[in-house]
Amino acid sequence: MSVETRLAALRARMKETGTDLLALGPGPNMHWALGFHTHPDERPCMFLVTADAAGFLMPVLNAADARARSALPMWTWADADGPDAALQAALAELKATTARKVGVDETMRADFALLLLDALPQAGHGFAAETLGALRMCKSAAEQDELRMNAAIDDRAMQAAFAAIRPGMTESDLAAVITQSFKDDGAAPLFRIVGTGANGAYPHHQTGDSIMAEGDAVVIDIGARKGDFSSDLTRMAVLGTPPADYDRVHAVVEAAVQAALAAARPGVAAMEVDRAARHVITEAGYGEYFVHRTGHGMGIEGHEPPYITESSATILDPGMVFSIEPGIYLPGRFGIRLEEVVILHDDGPEVLSALPRDAFRA
Amino acid sequence: MSVETRLAALRARMKETGTDLLALGPGPNMHWALGFHTHPDERPCMFLVTADAAGFLMPVLNAADARARSALPMWTWADADGPDAALQAALAELKATTARKVGVDETMRADFALLLLDALPQAGHGFAAETLGALRMCKSAAEQDELRMNAAIDDRAMQAAFAAIRPGMTESDLAAVITQSFKDDGAAPLFRIVGTGANGAYPHHQTGDSIMAEGDAVVIDIGARKGDFSSDLTRMAVLGTPPADYDRVHAVVEAAVQAALAAARPGVAAMEVDRAARHVITEAGYGEYFVHRTGHGMGIEGHEPPYITESSATILDPGMVFSIEPGIYLPGRFGIRLEEVVILHDDGPEVLSALPRDAFRA
Repeated sequence: MSVETRLAALRARMKETGTDLLALGPGPNMHWALGFHTHPDERPCMFLVTADAAGFLMPVLNAADARARSALPMWTWADADGPDAALQAALAELKATTARKVGVDETMRADFALLLLDALPQAGHGFAAETLGALRMCKSAAEQDELRMNAAIDDRAMQAAFAAIRPGMTESDLAAVITQSFKDDGAAPLFRIVGTGANGAYPHHQTGDSIMAEGDAVVIDIGARKGDFSSDLTRMAVLGTPPADYDRVHAVVEAAVQAALAAARPGVAAMEVDRAARHVITEAGYGEYFVHRTGHGMGIEGHEPPYITESSATILDPGMVFSIEPGIYLPGRFGIRLEEVVILHDDGPEVLSALPRDAFRA
Repeated sequence: MSVETRLAALRARMKETGTDLLALGPGPNMHWALGFHTHPDERPCMFLVTADAAGFLMPVLNAADARARSALPMWTWADADGPDAALQAALAELKATTARKVGVDETMRADFALLLLDALPQAGHGFAAETLGALRMCKSAAEQDELRMNAAIDDRAMQAAFAAIRPGMTESDLAAVITQSFKDDGAAPLFRIVGTGANGAYPHHQTGDSIMAEGDAVVIDIGARKGDFSSDLTRMAVLGTPPADYDRVHAVVEAAVQAALAAARPGVAAMEVDRAARHVITEAGYGEYFVHRTGHGMGIEGHEPPYITESSATILDPGMVFSIEPGIYLPGRFGIRLEEVVILHDDGPEVLSALPRDAFRA
């Protein structure tokens, strides 16, 4: 989609949601709208969109670089002057000084957002999720292809991890194998959670020097980025004889994944998908150990709408892309998470990974 | 310094600045205060500090990990519920519901900051710069040692670049050499600006596939992180016969560095250092081509206070660490930037790099 097409779609959503001014920081939302984003640092920089105009508040030292990528107007400011006067000029020329509702980019730095809102004391705020976020949820055919390519890269990295894993390695050793596989595929590693034994019971365990031992269940949750999109995949490995109850708990998580996949259909609210997975786990008696949502959208950002939570009323549409990743975390013992990323189609979800969800036995 | 010492110092600054509640996001300010930071994602998470209490608003799935690192209270929330009730409980128990001034972490996501400020409609806001930021500016002896170690790593990476650079390589090829040197030293690469020829006239050029050619001046601005601190160093390389005027412009930038180093003394305002450098460049007729501030502080973040700008009244104190990096950018031709990082002592600045500022001749 061209920038003009995206801005037109954005303005239609702004009208629907009563958003007079949309402000995007130098990050993924700006990238979605423009196909690039400006240099992110502590200097206030934002892309401002109204019903009929658009332009940048721009630190002067980044202006030349940005001008090479966009012909839209820029109100520049120098380090010695600070951004206030340039922002006033931008708001005046964009006819935004009387805006009643500002759509704030959630991911923007707090000081950028407050600079803008303090300059518009009559305005309330919403968030970009209402406008740009809603548009970003449905991926074009080309975007879907990029996600499939990234998923194949992630599958290969997981297979490389399975080929290498053995007792005596540290979590970081295994992460290095995964990193190398991503790099061999030309992808930038984004995250490599390797949680062995009791570490796996922390959903966001920080991969470290823990040694993987005989009898450990190991959570492997990895993703990388090639191009504008990324990947996300979680599988389990078991070293030798698994802990007591492992197979039973794994089967519960597997059943939860299958229930969520069955529930994911166009026209259904995101909460129904979460509830399908949660119901399976709760009925099996592990409800209190499933401490997170079932999934999150994926696109330019690794986590983005639609969020698959117990309370989300977002209606799922064809073209939406999200993870299904229930987990059971038994403190002091082990954790099990199984994660798929799916593209929703008219007839249901397309699972991007080609790997089985069985635990890899090493 | 222990967490208790840091919180005590922070509370003294909060009292001085009338800050009733300080809110830190999962980033460098939280890291400075606590020695770690919680997992940063889109789930609202913040460390809240009042005159007599402190604790976390915490997504439940990160709570166990954070509890292993801090005994301070946590108000947790689950994905299904969202953060509102937990935030209300936190503010009530911290006795912060009547706060008049909230110190907002500048680097926090906009939606985190607005969640908090919307919950405290009677409160105005300041920024963490007034309290925590002021304390962070002066580095302890141990922190200074970490910065010296990082500077030595950066020097080695620059020397590796000098050893490798030759016409026919791309900017990215040279960046790969720099990356490898950082990794060999156990440091994580943070940035590698390689700007050849006219690309060097963009201060924040995005290193790419441009081929370095005979006669090019090349800006090399690189930094990495080992431990909690990082490095930042800019030098020039010249391939063969430099462009017309190159040596004269280089000498002007060198004189600007020397003037700034001479001006940097305890008790002097940061603006005096900027003005010393700017004066040299302006007098030489290149004022309009020095499009940025003279420098920035360095610590847990690569850019942090004190900022060395034409308008900064911040008084320089012993223990402050900042860059001195004047530049002249001639559009369509070349750019020259020379950057030192210094630790300010009673008797003046200690330059961390051991490398000369002459252009490397390849």
